[in-house]
Amino acid sequence: MTHVLEMIRTHPGEPPVDEQVLSRCIEACHDCAQSCTSCADACLAEQDAQTLVRCIRLNLDCAEVCATTGNLLTREVEFDSEVARAVVGACAVACRVCGDECERHAQHMEHCRVCAEACRECEQACKDVVASLAA
Amino acid sequence: MTHVLEMIRTHPGEPPVDEQVLSRCIEACHDCAQSCTSCADACLAEQDAQTLVRCIRLNLDCAEVCATTGNLLTREVEFDSEVARAVVGACAVACRVCGDECERHAQHMEHCRVCAEACRECEQACKDVVASLAA
Amino acid sequence: MTHVLEMIRTHPGEPPVDEQVLSRCIEACHDCAQSCTSCADACLAEQDAQTLVRCIRLNLDCAEVCATTGNLLTREVEFDSEVARAVVGACAVACRVCGDECERHAQHMEHCRVCAEACRECEQACKDVVASLAA
Amino acid sequence: MTHVLEMIRTHPGEPPVDEQVLSRCIEACHDCAQSCTSCADACLAEQDAQTLVRCIRLNLDCAEVCATTGNLLTREVEFDSEVARAVVGACAVACRVCGDECERHAQHMEHCRVCAEACRECEQACKDVVASLAA
Repeated sequence: MTHVLEMIRTHPGEPPVDEQVLSRCIEACHDCAQSCTSCADACLAEQDAQTLVRCIRLNLDCAEVCATTGNLLTREVEFDSEVARAVVGACAVACRVCGDECERHAQHMEHCRVCAEACRECEQACKDVVASLAA
Repeated sequence: MTHVLEMIRTHPGEPPVDEQVLSRCIEACHDCAQSCTSCADACLAEQDAQTLVRCIRLNLDCAEVCATTGNLLTREVEFDSEVARAVVGACAVACRVCGDECERHAQHMEHCRVCAEACRECEQACKDVVASLAA
Repeated sequence: MTHVLEMIRTHPGEPPVDEQVLSRCIEACHDCAQSCTSCADACLAEQDAQTLVRCIRLNLDCAEVCATTGNLLTREVEFDSEVARAVVGACAVACRVCGDECERHAQHMEHCRVCAEACRECEQACKDVVASLAA
Repeated sequence: MTHVLEMIRTHPGEPPVDEQVLSRCIEACHDCAQSCTSCADACLAEQDAQTLVRCIRLNLDCAEVCATTGNLLTREVEFDSEVARAVVGACAVACRVCGDECERHAQHMEHCRVCAEACRECEQACKDVVASLAA
Protein backbone atom coordinates (compact mmCIF):
# COMPACT_ATOMS: atom_id res chain seq x y z
CA MET A 1 0.00 0.00 0.00
CA THR A 2 2.79 2.41 0.91
CA HIS A 3 5.56 3.40 -1.50
CA VAL A 4 8.39 2.58 0.96
CA LEU A 5 9.89 -0.41 -0.82
CA GLU A 6 9.48 1.20 -4.25
CA MET A 7 11.31 4.31 -3.03
CA ILE A 8 14.18 2.17 -1.67
CA ARG A 9 14.45 0.32 -4.99
CA THR A 10 14.51 3.46 -7.12
CA HIS A 11 17.05 5.22 -4.88
CA PRO A 12 20.44 5.52 -6.63
CA GLY A 13 22.32 4.41 -3.50
CA GLU A 14 22.58 1.25 -1.45
CA PRO A 15 20.39 0.77 1.63
CA PRO A 16 22.43 0.57 4.87
CA VAL A 17 20.81 -2.75 5.80
CA ASP A 18 18.82 -5.44 3.99
CA GLU A 19 15.95 -3.75 2.11
CA GLN A 20 13.28 -5.98 3.68
CA VAL A 21 14.52 -5.30 7.23
CA LEU A 22 14.77 -1.61 6.41
CA SER A 23 11.40 -1.15 4.73
CA ARG A 24 9.65 -3.13 7.48
CA CYS A 25 11.15 -0.82 10.11
CA ILE A 26 10.33 2.39 8.23
CA GLU A 27 6.73 1.24 7.78
CA ALA A 28 6.49 0.09 11.40
CA CYS A 29 7.84 3.44 12.64
CA HIS A 30 5.32 5.51 10.70
CA ASP A 31 2.47 3.13 11.53
CA CYS A 32 3.36 3.21 15.24
CA ALA A 33 3.64 7.00 15.17
CA GLN A 34 0.15 7.22 13.68
CA SER A 35 -1.31 4.66 16.11
CA CYS A 36 0.17 6.48 19.11
CA THR A 37 -1.15 9.86 17.91
CA SER A 38 -4.56 8.24 17.54
CA CYS A 39 -4.39 6.42 20.90
CA ALA A 40 -3.48 9.64 22.76
CA ASP A 41 -6.52 11.28 21.17
CA ALA A 42 -8.80 8.32 21.90
CA CYS A 43 -7.66 8.27 25.55
CA LEU A 44 -8.44 11.99 25.76
CA ALA A 45 -11.94 11.24 24.48
CA GLU A 46 -12.59 8.59 27.15
CA GLN A 47 -14.78 9.48 30.13
CA ASP A 48 -12.00 8.49 32.51
CA ALA A 49 -9.25 10.36 30.60
CA GLN A 50 -7.85 11.44 33.96
CA THR A 51 -6.74 7.84 34.64
CA LEU A 52 -5.03 7.62 31.25
CA VAL A 53 -2.60 10.50 31.59
CA ARG A 54 0.47 8.24 31.62
CA CYS A 55 -0.77 6.49 28.47
CA ILE A 56 -1.39 9.82 26.69
CA ARG A 57 2.05 11.13 27.63
CA LEU A 58 3.92 8.03 26.51
CA ASN A 59 1.88 7.98 23.29
CA LEU A 60 2.95 11.54 22.50
CA ASP A 61 6.62 10.74 23.15
CA CYS A 62 6.51 7.48 21.19
CA ALA A 63 4.73 9.11 18.23
CA GLU A 64 7.46 11.71 17.78
CA VAL A 65 10.37 9.37 18.36
CA CYS A 66 8.96 6.88 15.84
CA ALA A 67 8.35 9.54 13.17
CA THR A 68 11.90 10.87 13.60
CA THR A 69 13.33 7.35 13.44
CA GLY A 70 11.33 6.47 10.34
CA ASN A 71 12.65 9.57 8.60
CA LEU A 72 16.26 8.97 9.66
CA LEU A 73 16.09 5.41 8.31
CA THR A 74 14.58 6.70 5.07
CA ARG A 75 17.73 8.70 4.37
CA GLU A 76 20.46 6.52 2.85
CA VAL A 77 22.99 9.12 1.78
CA GLU A 78 26.06 9.25 4.05
CA PHE A 79 24.28 7.03 6.55
CA ASP A 80 25.96 7.29 9.96
CA SER A 81 25.73 4.02 11.90
CA GLU A 82 26.57 5.52 15.28
CA VAL A 83 23.75 8.08 15.12
CA ALA A 84 21.39 5.48 13.68
CA ARG A 85 22.10 2.94 16.43
CA ALA A 86 21.52 5.56 19.14
CA VAL A 87 18.26 6.83 17.65
CA VAL A 88 16.79 3.47 16.58
CA GLY A 89 17.81 2.05 19.96
CA ALA A 90 16.03 4.90 21.76
CA CYS A 91 12.99 4.24 19.57
CA ALA A 92 12.91 0.60 20.69
CA VAL A 93 12.89 1.80 24.33
CA ALA A 94 10.08 4.29 23.69
CA CYS A 95 8.02 1.59 21.92
CA ARG A 96 8.58 -0.94 24.72
CA VAL A 97 7.58 1.44 27.52
CA CYS A 98 4.56 2.77 25.59
CA GLY A 99 3.53 -0.73 24.54
CA ASP A 100 3.68 -1.90 28.17
CA GLU A 101 1.42 0.94 29.26
CA CYS A 102 -1.07 0.43 26.42
CA GLU A 103 -1.21 -3.27 27.24
CA ARG A 104 -2.34 -2.48 30.78
CA HIS A 105 -5.52 -0.94 29.32
CA ALA A 106 -5.92 -3.34 26.40
CA GLN A 107 -8.67 -5.41 28.03
CA HIS A 108 -11.16 -2.58 28.35
CA MET A 109 -9.93 -0.21 25.64
CA GLU A 110 -9.65 -1.50 22.10
CA HIS A 111 -7.55 1.44 20.89
CA CYS A 112 -4.93 0.64 23.51
CA ARG A 113 -4.93 -2.99 22.37
CA VAL A 114 -4.36 -2.05 18.73
CA CYS A 115 -1.77 0.57 19.68
CA ALA A 116 0.13 -1.92 21.87
CA GLU A 117 0.30 -4.19 18.82
CA ALA A 118 1.76 -1.39 16.68
CA CYS A 119 4.29 -0.62 19.45
CA ARG A 120 5.39 -4.26 19.67
CA GLU A 121 5.86 -4.54 15.92
CA CYS A 122 7.89 -1.33 15.85
CA GLU A 123 10.00 -2.32 18.87
CA GLN A 124 10.90 -5.60 17.15
CA ALA A 125 11.58 -3.94 13.79
CA CYS A 126 13.90 -1.43 15.50
CA LYS A 127 15.77 -4.24 17.26
CA ASP A 128 16.20 -6.01 13.92
CA VAL A 129 17.70 -2.89 12.38
CA VAL A 130 20.04 -2.34 15.33
CA ALA A 131 21.17 -5.97 15.08
CA SER A 132 21.82 -5.54 11.35
CA LEU A 133 23.76 -2.33 11.92
CA ALA A 134 25.93 -3.98 14.55
CA ALA A 135 26.75 -6.89 12.27
CA MET B 1 -1.14 -3.09 6.44
CA THR B 2 -1.34 0.03 8.59
CA HIS B 3 -3.55 0.29 11.67
CA VAL B 4 -5.24 3.54 10.56
CA LEU B 5 -8.73 2.21 9.95
CA GLU B 6 -8.61 -0.03 13.02
CA MET B 7 -7.64 2.96 15.18
CA ILE B 8 -10.54 5.00 13.77
CA ARG B 9 -12.98 2.17 14.49
CA THR B 10 -11.82 1.64 18.09
CA HIS B 11 -11.84 5.39 18.87
CA PRO B 12 -14.69 6.27 21.28
CA GLY B 13 -15.64 9.34 19.21
CA GLU B 14 -17.10 9.97 15.78
CA PRO B 15 -14.76 10.74 12.86
CA PRO B 16 -15.28 14.28 11.46
CA VAL B 17 -15.81 12.92 7.93
CA ASP B 18 -16.62 9.53 6.41
CA GLU B 19 -14.15 6.96 7.78
CA GLN B 20 -13.03 5.79 4.33
CA VAL B 21 -12.33 9.33 3.12
CA LEU B 22 -10.56 10.06 6.38
CA SER B 23 -8.40 6.93 6.59
CA ARG B 24 -7.42 7.26 2.93
CA CYS B 25 -6.23 10.82 3.54
CA ILE B 26 -4.31 9.97 6.74
CA GLU B 27 -2.57 7.09 4.96
CA ALA B 28 -1.87 9.21 1.88
CA CYS B 29 -0.40 11.99 4.02
CA HIS B 30 2.02 9.71 5.84
CA ASP B 31 2.91 7.84 2.66
CA CYS B 32 3.56 11.10 0.80
CA ALA B 33 5.65 12.42 3.70
CA GLN B 34 7.79 9.29 3.57
CA SER B 35 8.10 9.36 -0.23
CA CYS B 36 9.14 13.03 -0.20
CA THR B 37 11.74 12.43 2.53
CA SER B 38 13.10 9.58 0.43
CA CYS B 39 13.00 11.55 -2.84
CA ALA B 40 14.93 14.46 -1.29
CA ASP B 41 17.58 11.99 -0.18
CA ALA B 42 17.68 10.20 -3.53
CA CYS B 43 18.03 13.53 -5.37
CA LEU B 44 20.92 14.40 -3.04
CA ALA B 45 22.57 11.10 -4.01
CA GLU B 46 22.32 11.82 -7.74
CA GLN B 47 25.42 12.95 -9.61
CA ASP B 48 23.61 16.04 -10.81
CA ALA B 49 22.15 16.91 -7.40
CA GLN B 50 22.89 20.56 -8.14
CA THR B 51 20.14 20.57 -10.79
CA LEU B 52 17.65 19.07 -8.35
CA VAL B 53 17.76 21.72 -5.63
CA ARG B 54 14.19 22.88 -6.27
CA CYS B 55 12.96 19.28 -6.09
CA ILE B 56 14.83 18.66 -2.81
CA ARG B 57 13.47 21.85 -1.26
CA LEU B 58 9.86 21.19 -2.22
CA ASN B 59 10.21 17.59 -1.02
CA LEU B 60 11.34 18.79 2.41
CA ASP B 61 8.43 21.24 2.67
CA CYS B 62 5.88 18.71 1.41
CA ALA B 63 7.16 15.99 3.79
CA GLU B 64 6.62 18.13 6.86
CA VAL B 65 3.28 19.59 5.79
CA CYS B 66 1.95 16.09 5.00
CA ALA B 67 3.11 14.64 8.33
CA THR B 68 1.50 17.51 10.24
CA THR B 69 -1.72 17.16 8.23
CA GLY B 70 -1.86 13.39 8.77
CA ASN B 71 -1.50 13.93 12.52
CA LEU B 72 -4.11 16.69 12.65
CA LEU B 73 -6.61 14.47 10.81
CA THR B 74 -5.82 11.60 13.19
CA ARG B 75 -7.11 13.66 16.12
CA GLU B 76 -10.92 13.50 16.34
CA VAL B 77 -11.52 15.07 19.73
CA GLU B 78 -12.90 18.63 19.49
CA PHE B 79 -12.12 18.68 15.79
CA ASP B 80 -12.04 22.26 14.50
CA SER B 81 -13.20 22.49 10.89
CA GLU B 82 -11.76 25.94 10.26
CA VAL B 83 -8.22 24.93 11.28
CA ALA B 84 -8.57 21.62 9.42
CA ARG B 85 -9.71 23.27 6.18
CA ALA B 86 -6.79 25.71 6.28
CA VAL B 87 -4.18 23.03 7.01
CA VAL B 88 -5.52 20.32 4.70
CA GLY B 89 -5.97 22.94 1.97
CA ALA B 90 -2.35 24.07 2.39
CA CYS B 91 -1.30 20.43 2.19
CA ALA B 92 -3.08 20.04 -1.16
CA VAL B 93 -1.11 23.06 -2.46
CA ALA B 94 2.21 21.68 -1.19
CA CYS B 95 1.46 18.29 -2.81
CA ARG B 96 0.47 19.86 -6.13
CA VAL B 97 3.57 22.05 -6.39
CA CYS B 98 5.90 19.24 -5.29
CA GLY B 99 4.18 16.72 -7.57
CA ASP B 100 4.57 19.08 -10.54
CA GLU B 101 8.28 19.43 -9.87
CA CYS B 102 8.82 15.68 -9.39
CA GLU B 103 6.95 15.00 -12.62
CA ARG B 104 9.43 17.16 -14.53
CA HIS B 105 12.16 14.66 -13.60
CA ALA B 106 10.02 11.52 -13.75
CA GLN B 107 11.30 10.38 -17.16
CA HIS B 108 14.90 9.98 -16.11
CA MET B 109 14.56 9.52 -12.36
CA GLU B 110 12.38 6.71 -11.10
CA HIS B 111 12.26 8.02 -7.52
CA CYS B 112 10.74 11.27 -8.80
CA ARG B 113 8.16 9.30 -10.77
CA VAL B 114 7.12 7.29 -7.70
CA CYS B 115 7.14 10.38 -5.49
CA ALA B 116 5.01 12.34 -7.98
CA GLU B 117 2.48 9.49 -7.78
CA ALA B 118 2.41 9.71 -3.95
CA CYS B 119 1.98 13.50 -4.20
CA ARG B 120 -0.95 13.19 -6.61
CA GLU B 121 -2.71 10.64 -4.41
CA CYS B 122 -2.26 12.85 -1.36
CA GLU B 123 -3.36 16.00 -3.16
CA GLN B 124 -6.58 14.26 -4.23
CA ALA B 125 -7.18 12.76 -0.79
CA CYS B 126 -6.77 16.21 0.80
CA LYS B 127 -9.22 17.74 -1.68
CA ASP B 128 -11.74 15.01 -0.83
CA VAL B 129 -11.44 15.78 2.88
CA VAL B 130 -11.79 19.53 2.30
CA ALA B 131 -14.90 18.86 0.17
CA SER B 132 -16.36 16.68 2.93
CA LEU B 133 -15.62 19.30 5.58
CA ALA B 134 -17.30 22.01 3.54
CA ALA B 135 -20.41 19.93 3.03
CA MET C 1 19.62 34.09 22.38
CA THR C 2 18.73 31.95 19.37
CA HIS C 3 20.93 31.71 16.28
CA VAL C 4 18.09 32.50 13.83
CA LEU C 5 19.28 35.91 12.63
CA GLU C 6 22.92 34.79 12.50
CA MET C 7 21.95 31.81 10.34
CA ILE C 8 20.00 34.07 7.96
CA ARG C 9 22.99 36.42 7.67
CA THR C 10 25.52 33.66 6.97
CA HIS C 11 23.27 31.95 4.39
CA PRO C 12 24.67 32.35 0.86
CA GLY C 13 21.24 33.23 -0.56
CA GLU C 14 18.78 36.07 -0.18
CA PRO C 15 15.90 35.79 2.31
CA PRO C 16 12.46 35.78 0.60
CA VAL C 17 11.27 38.67 2.77
CA ASP C 18 12.92 41.32 4.98
CA GLU C 19 15.28 39.56 7.40
CA GLN C 20 13.73 41.13 10.50
CA VAL C 21 10.20 40.12 9.48
CA LEU C 22 11.48 36.67 8.63
CA SER C 23 13.55 36.01 11.74
CA ARG C 24 10.77 37.30 13.98
CA CYS C 25 8.33 34.86 12.39
CA ILE C 26 10.70 31.88 12.56
CA GLU C 27 11.37 32.59 16.25
CA ALA C 28 7.69 33.14 16.97
CA CYS C 29 6.76 29.87 15.25
CA HIS C 30 9.22 27.79 17.27
CA ASP C 31 8.39 29.60 20.50
CA CYS C 32 4.65 29.11 19.92
CA ALA C 33 5.21 25.43 19.10
CA GLN C 34 7.06 24.98 22.37
CA SER C 35 4.49 26.92 24.40
CA CYS C 36 1.62 24.91 22.91
CA THR C 37 3.40 21.60 23.63
CA SER C 38 3.90 22.78 27.20
CA CYS C 39 0.34 24.08 27.59
CA ALA C 40 -1.14 20.78 26.38
CA ASP C 41 0.95 19.00 29.00
CA ALA C 42 0.09 21.48 31.74
CA CYS C 43 -3.63 21.15 30.93
CA LEU C 44 -3.27 17.38 31.17
CA ALA C 45 -1.73 17.82 34.64
CA GLU C 46 -4.65 19.95 35.90
CA GLN C 47 -7.23 18.33 38.16
CA ASP C 48 -10.00 19.33 35.79
CA ALA C 49 -8.17 18.15 32.65
CA GLN C 50 -11.49 16.79 31.39
CA THR C 51 -12.75 20.36 30.88
CA LEU C 52 -9.63 21.31 28.94
CA VAL C 53 -9.84 18.74 26.14
CA ARG C 54 -10.49 21.39 23.46
CA CYS C 55 -7.50 23.40 24.65
CA ILE C 56 -5.23 20.31 24.62
CA ARG C 57 -6.35 19.35 21.13
CA LEU C 58 -5.86 22.80 19.64
CA ASN C 59 -2.48 23.06 21.38
CA LEU C 60 -1.35 19.82 19.72
CA ASP C 61 -2.48 21.00 16.29
CA CYS C 62 -0.98 24.46 16.71
CA ALA C 63 2.35 23.07 17.96
CA GLU C 64 2.85 20.94 14.86
CA VAL C 65 1.65 23.54 12.37
CA CYS C 66 3.96 26.18 13.92
CA ALA C 67 7.00 23.88 13.89
CA THR C 68 6.38 22.98 10.24
CA THR C 69 5.91 26.64 9.33
CA GLY C 70 9.06 27.72 11.16
CA ASN C 71 11.03 25.09 9.26
CA LEU C 72 9.53 26.01 5.88
CA LEU C 73 10.40 29.68 6.45
CA THR C 74 13.93 28.70 7.47
CA ARG C 75 14.54 27.25 4.01
CA GLU C 76 15.46 29.99 1.51
CA VAL C 77 16.60 27.92 -1.46
CA GLU C 78 14.05 27.89 -4.30
CA PHE C 79 11.48 29.45 -2.01
CA ASP C 80 7.99 28.92 -3.41
CA SER C 81 5.67 31.80 -2.53
CA GLU C 82 2.46 29.93 -3.29
CA VAL C 83 3.25 27.08 -0.91
CA ALA C 84 4.55 29.52 1.70
CA ARG C 85 1.43 31.69 1.60
CA ALA C 86 -0.82 28.65 2.02
CA VAL C 87 1.18 27.19 4.92
CA VAL C 88 1.93 30.44 6.76
CA GLY C 89 -1.70 31.47 6.27
CA ALA C 90 -2.89 28.18 7.76
CA CYS C 91 -0.52 28.75 10.66
CA ALA C 92 -2.09 32.14 11.37
CA VAL C 93 -5.51 30.43 11.52
CA ALA C 94 -4.23 27.69 13.88
CA CYS C 95 -2.65 30.33 16.15
CA ARG C 96 -5.80 32.46 16.21
CA VAL C 97 -8.13 29.58 17.09
CA CYS C 98 -5.72 28.16 19.70
CA GLY C 99 -5.03 31.62 21.15
CA ASP C 100 -8.80 32.26 21.49
CA GLU C 101 -9.26 29.00 23.37
CA CYS C 102 -6.26 29.59 25.68
CA GLU C 103 -7.55 33.07 26.43
CA ARG C 104 -10.82 31.62 27.72
CA HIS C 105 -8.82 29.91 30.52
CA ALA C 106 -6.24 32.65 31.01
CA GLN C 107 -7.82 34.07 34.15
CA HIS C 108 -7.47 30.91 36.22
CA MET C 109 -4.63 29.15 34.44
CA GLU C 110 -1.36 30.98 34.05
CA HIS C 111 0.03 28.55 31.44
CA CYS C 112 -2.94 29.29 29.19
CA ARG C 113 -2.34 33.03 29.62
CA VAL C 114 1.33 32.71 28.61
CA CYS C 115 0.47 30.36 25.75
CA ALA C 116 -2.22 32.73 24.45
CA GLU C 117 0.45 35.43 24.35
CA ALA C 118 2.79 33.19 22.30
CA CYS C 119 -0.10 32.36 19.94
CA ARG C 120 -0.93 36.06 19.40
CA GLU C 121 2.68 36.93 18.66
CA CYS C 122 2.95 34.08 16.18
CA GLU C 123 -0.37 34.88 14.51
CA GLN C 124 0.77 38.48 13.95
CA ALA C 125 4.24 37.43 12.75
CA CYS C 126 2.64 35.03 10.24
CA LYS C 127 0.32 37.75 8.96
CA ASP C 128 3.32 40.06 8.50
CA VAL C 129 5.11 37.40 6.43
CA VAL C 130 2.02 36.74 4.31
CA ALA C 131 1.67 40.50 3.71
CA SER C 132 5.34 40.72 2.68
CA LEU C 133 5.00 37.74 0.35
CA ALA C 134 1.94 39.26 -1.32
CA ALA C 135 3.71 42.56 -1.88
CA MET D 1 12.94 35.99 24.48
CA THR D 2 11.28 32.57 24.44
CA HIS D 3 8.51 31.57 26.84
CA VAL D 4 10.23 28.32 27.93
CA LEU D 5 11.03 29.26 31.53
CA GLU D 6 7.69 31.01 32.01
CA MET D 7 5.86 27.90 30.79
CA ILE D 8 7.83 25.71 33.23
CA ARG D 9 6.99 28.05 36.11
CA THR D 10 3.27 28.19 35.36
CA HIS D 11 2.99 24.42 34.91
CA PRO D 12 1.05 22.82 37.80
CA GLY D 13 3.59 19.98 38.11
CA GLU D 14 7.20 19.67 39.14
CA PRO D 15 9.94 19.65 36.48
CA PRO D 16 11.84 16.32 36.34
CA VAL D 17 15.19 18.09 36.74
CA ASP D 18 16.34 21.54 37.90
CA GLU D 19 14.37 24.18 35.98
CA GLN D 20 17.49 26.00 34.75
CA VAL D 21 19.08 22.79 33.44
CA LEU D 22 15.77 21.84 31.86
CA SER D 23 14.92 25.16 30.21
CA ARG D 24 18.46 25.52 28.88
CA CYS D 25 18.21 22.10 27.24
CA ILE D 26 14.75 22.72 25.75
CA GLU D 27 15.93 26.03 24.31
CA ALA D 28 19.18 24.50 23.05
CA CYS D 29 17.27 21.65 21.36
CA HIS D 30 14.93 23.95 19.47
CA ASP D 31 17.70 26.37 18.60
CA CYS D 32 19.90 23.54 17.32
CA ALA D 33 17.00 22.09 15.33
CA GLN D 34 16.48 25.47 13.66
CA SER D 35 20.21 26.00 13.00
CA CYS D 36 20.54 22.54 11.44
CA THR D 37 17.49 23.07 9.22
CA SER D 38 19.03 26.36 8.11
CA CYS D 39 22.53 24.91 7.63
CA ALA D 40 21.20 22.08 5.45
CA ASP D 41 19.50 24.69 3.29
CA ALA D 42 22.55 26.96 3.17
CA CYS D 43 24.75 24.00 2.17
CA LEU D 44 22.27 23.20 -0.60
CA ALA D 45 22.60 26.79 -1.83
CA GLU D 46 26.41 26.61 -2.02
CA GLN D 47 28.05 26.19 -5.41
CA ASP D 48 29.86 23.08 -4.19
CA ALA D 49 26.76 21.54 -2.56
CA GLN D 50 27.90 18.17 -3.90
CA THR D 51 30.82 18.18 -1.43
CA LEU D 52 28.48 18.95 1.46
CA VAL D 53 26.15 15.98 1.20
CA ARG D 54 27.32 14.46 4.49
CA CYS D 55 26.78 17.80 6.25
CA ILE D 56 23.27 18.16 4.79
CA ARG D 57 22.33 14.63 5.78
CA LEU D 58 23.56 14.94 9.35
CA ASN D 59 21.86 18.33 9.64
CA LEU D 60 18.52 16.80 8.65
CA ASP D 61 18.91 13.97 11.19
CA CYS D 62 20.06 16.30 13.96
CA ALA D 63 17.25 18.78 13.31
CA GLU D 64 14.56 16.15 13.78
CA VAL D 65 16.16 14.44 16.77
CA CYS D 66 16.61 17.80 18.54
CA ALA D 67 13.02 18.89 17.89
CA THR D 68 11.70 15.58 19.21
CA THR D 69 13.96 15.78 22.27
CA GLY D 70 12.95 19.38 23.01
CA ASN D 71 9.28 18.36 22.90
CA LEU D 72 9.79 15.28 25.08
CA LEU D 73 11.58 17.38 27.72
CA THR D 74 8.78 19.95 27.56
CA ARG D 75 6.30 17.34 28.77
CA GLU D 76 6.48 16.95 32.58
CA VAL D 77 3.42 14.83 33.24
CA GLU D 78 4.27 11.19 34.05
CA PHE D 79 7.83 11.79 32.94
CA ASP D 80 9.55 8.49 32.23
CA SER D 81 13.28 8.63 33.02
CA GLU D 82 14.20 5.55 31.03
CA VAL D 83 12.71 6.84 27.79
CA ALA D 84 14.11 10.31 28.47
CA ARG D 85 17.63 9.04 29.07
CA ALA D 86 17.57 7.02 25.83
CA VAL D 87 16.22 9.87 23.71
CA VAL D 88 18.26 12.71 25.23
CA GLY D 89 21.35 10.48 25.06
CA ALA D 90 20.71 9.79 21.37
CA CYS D 91 20.30 13.53 20.85
CA ALA D 92 23.73 14.17 22.36
CA VAL D 93 25.21 11.66 19.88
CA ALA D 94 23.43 13.28 16.91
CA CYS D 95 24.65 16.73 18.01
CA ARG D 96 28.23 15.56 18.47
CA VAL D 97 28.46 13.87 15.06
CA CYS D 98 26.74 16.78 13.27
CA GLY D 99 28.84 19.35 15.15
CA ASP D 100 32.03 17.52 14.16
CA GLU D 101 31.02 17.58 10.50
CA CYS D 102 29.99 21.26 10.57
CA GLU D 103 33.29 22.14 12.23
CA ARG D 104 35.18 20.65 9.31
CA HIS D 105 33.65 23.33 7.06
CA ALA D 106 33.60 26.14 9.62
CA GLN D 107 36.66 27.92 8.25
CA HIS D 108 35.20 28.64 4.83
CA MET D 109 31.48 28.50 5.57
CA GLU D 110 30.09 30.78 8.25
CA HIS D 111 26.75 28.95 8.48
CA CYS D 112 28.60 25.75 9.38
CA ARG D 113 30.56 27.62 12.06
CA VAL D 114 27.38 29.00 13.65
CA CYS D 115 25.62 25.65 13.34
CA ALA D 116 28.57 23.81 14.96
CA GLU D 117 28.25 26.23 17.87
CA ALA D 118 24.53 25.44 18.25
CA CYS D 119 25.31 21.70 18.08
CA ARG D 120 27.97 21.98 20.82
CA GLU D 121 25.64 23.90 23.11
CA CYS D 122 22.89 21.36 22.60
CA GLU D 123 25.21 18.37 23.06
CA GLN D 124 26.37 19.80 26.40
CA ALA D 125 22.84 20.70 27.52
CA CYS D 126 21.71 17.14 26.74
CA LYS D 127 24.60 15.67 28.72
CA ASP D 128 23.67 17.89 31.66
CA VAL D 129 20.09 16.63 31.57
CA VAL D 130 21.21 12.99 31.32
CA ALA D 131 23.55 13.52 34.30
CA SER D 132 20.68 15.07 36.31
CA LEU D 133 18.34 12.21 35.41
CA ALA D 134 20.91 9.62 36.48
CA ALA D 135 21.43 11.34 39.83
